[in-house]
Amino acid sequence: MIESAIKLSVRDVADFPKLGIVFKDITPILKDAELCAEITKALAEQLAGIHIDVVAGIESRGFLFGMLLAQALKVPFVPIRKAGKLPSKTIQQKYELEYGNSTLELHEDALLAGQKILIHDDLLATGGTVIAASKLVLQLDAEVVAFSFIIGLDFLHGKERLKPFSSNTFTLASYQ
Amino acid sequence: MIESAIKLSVRDVADFPKLGIVFKDITPILKDAELCAEITKALAEQLAGIHIDVVAGIESRGFLFGMLLAQALKVPFVPIRKAGKLPSKTIQQKYELEYGNSTLELHEDALLAGQKILIHDDLLATGGTVIAASKLVLQLDAEVVAFSFIIGLDFLHGKERLKPFSSNTFTLASYQ
Repeated sequence: MIESAIKLSVRDVADFPKLGIVFKDITPILKDAELCAEITKALAEQLAGIHIDVVAGIESRGFLFGMLLAQALKVPFVPIRKAGKLPSKTIQQKYELEYGNSTLELHEDALLAGQKILIHDDLLATGGTVIAASKLVLQLDAEVVAFSFIIGLDFLHGKERLKPFSSNTFTLASYQ
Repeated sequence: MIESAIKLSVRDVADFPKLGIVFKDITPILKDAELCAEITKALAEQLAGIHIDVVAGIESRGFLFGMLLAQALKVPFVPIRKAGKLPSKTIQQKYELEYGNSTLELHEDALLAGQKILIHDDLLATGGTVIAASKLVLQLDAEVVAFSFIIGLDFLHGKERLKPFSSNTFTLASYQ
């Protein structure tokens, strides 16, 4: 039910960010306050039974529901950002994207050793960004206990690539 | 009370993003789930009596509490993003920052003519970014009814520069 509501709302944008890519635009979801509340509730419910100390959200779209999810779970939120954005001392992780490459950063005091981290982003594609985020979490001796996404592009097999980090990968709407 | 809690939590980072700037780092706030809930409540309470159709949040840090605020007010959220990030057709506005210059974009179908928009960001400095965001709202024939920030750097006089757009500028913690 939530899956069909999400799929009805998501807008496909052809050739963004480059030719041949069909981009899943979630901005129509953000315009629907009730759907946003339902998504937040569903994201939290999927995680029932998993102990989570911190929600880490990936810049920028992972900030949107990442904060809502952290508040729903009543746990801290930690931003994982693009290079040069976090002001204090950071650790870095380079990664390749479906379309280009980039670097993610995390404040070196963002997590405590042993904390159980949920990594959230809006969409799981090939998993490259999320793997880089996971490596940042591991660099700080914290543990990745689950991944949470609104949308999963299952045909890109990201879930399999995330398994070495955690087999708890949740999506609300998946495209085969 | 919320002001002192915010000020106790915010971390000053010297010389970021460049020499001579003291950056107000809000990441310690994000680690405190209870303080985040109080901030969201306080942001919403400041706006009591003002009719708001949409919360527009400025990338990236304006996404964090922008979504929480939109959910608290039960209204749509619209992201205002850096150039090249929004996938569908956009309008653009260039602006100068305290330290550099940039371009903001808004989907051309993000707002309806006549809608009453609250613009949210984490921090008000000179107001350059927020003025560009306001111009985007006006380009779509919508109305800026208020500005909402967690932190105001009052010594930079941003509030005065925002007056031509709206005199309803709210901050939770201000630095003189």
